[in-house]
Amino acid sequence: MSKIITISREFGSGGRELGKRLADALGIPCYDHQIIEMVAEKTKLNKNYVASMDEKNIQSFYPSTISHGFSMPSYAIIQSAEIINAEQELIKKLASEGDCIIIGRAADVILAEHKPFSIFVCADNESKIARCRARAKDGENFTDKQILRKCKSIDKQRRMYREVYTNSKWGSAASFNLCINTSGKEIKKLLPAVITYINTWFEEE
Amino acid sequence: MSKIITISREFGSGGRELGKRLADALGIPCYDHQIIEMVAEKTKLNKNYVASMDEKNIQSFYPSTISHGFSMPSYAIIQSAEIINAEQELIKKLASEGDCIIIGRAADVILAEHKPFSIFVCADNESKIARCRARAKDGENFTDKQILRKCKSIDKQRRMYREVYTNSKWGSAASFNLCINTSGKEIKKLLPAVITYINTWFEEE
Repeated sequence: MSKIITISREFGSGGRELGKRLADALGIPCYDHQIIEMVAEKTKLNKNYVASMDEKNIQSFYPSTISHGFSMPSYAIIQSAEIINAEQELIKKLASEGDCIIIGRAADVILAEHKPFSIFVCADNESKIARCRARAKDGENFTDKQILRKCKSIDKQRRMYREVYTNSKWGSAASFNLCINTSGKEIKKLLPAVITYINTWFEEE
Repeated sequence: MSKIITISREFGSGGRELGKRLADALGIPCYDHQIIEMVAEKTKLNKNYVASMDEKNIQSFYPSTISHGFSMPSYAIIQSAEIINAEQELIKKLASEGDCIIIGRAADVILAEHKPFSIFVCADNESKIARCRARAKDGENFTDKQILRKCKSIDKQRRMYREVYTNSKWGSAASFNLCINTSGKEIKKLLPAVITYINTWFEEE
């Protein structure tokens, strides 16, 4: 059975960086944005449109009593379901092809049969702000409040995505094999310890 | 500053075993039940009485709207507060004396100034049942349902203890530095990887 590592993450926690560094260190592929491109190709839909329907637009599926009214027209709801299905099929296909790392999209639950090693990455607000500033594009000049608002908004979508599609709580220790809090730490410093933990985990299988 | 490791844990997850094994490997003391004995000595109260007021009897502090009525007489509530205070003072004293591991009692929050490395240990029901059976006394013969009821009841007390005394959520990744899910794993197998992670964490300070 392939060694599959999944990473769920709070926005600004360094989860994606951890995934990329793990992939480099372990010599295996890491899928994140690539999933959007592959799904766009398969569904013949525009990449940006697929991205907009990805983890970030789960509200359209929520009952109106929770989301306070559907904001999407019905054709978009159907397309959104089509995109989510295509994503889930793709994630299963990627996992069946060999060892890999998959970021987000509740991949650990989708791939439960593969017994993936599931990681959740989180951080405190101070670290998230610092990380967002460090990777900001030239000219971007958001206030701390604006950055945190963005973090919270994206995390809300991620939480909803997981909790709508699976029976597993986002951010809860019991939902993952390992939860890493990166507050005040550099990902590259934590990397060797995370690799040791992953190797130990799979050695035991 | 001392290197303090705190372990919060679900009942039956192996958190206490992890603490003891870490203490042996790192050559530092681990405090768990000893805290009850020390507090009993200090308060001149009976050890069993102190134990009954420890993490396990937080309901008495909850407003009656939550706990559905106080079950303790007022003198017991005052003594319970006295015991909790004595415990917290003792935990601070132990941490000030040098490197150590403290199990439970929201020690990571009490010792925030020491920047402890805080671990949360959890496991799935199957593993908890197996672990409880493995450490059962001769003659004990509980059903799976009885074991899980005990686990849930103790965890509820631990959650309430943390959430009444601190502003930190029990079992949430964001509340701890590292959350370890021991489902299907032996603690002694995971130990070296946890030690590597702890060493990396403190190296960076």
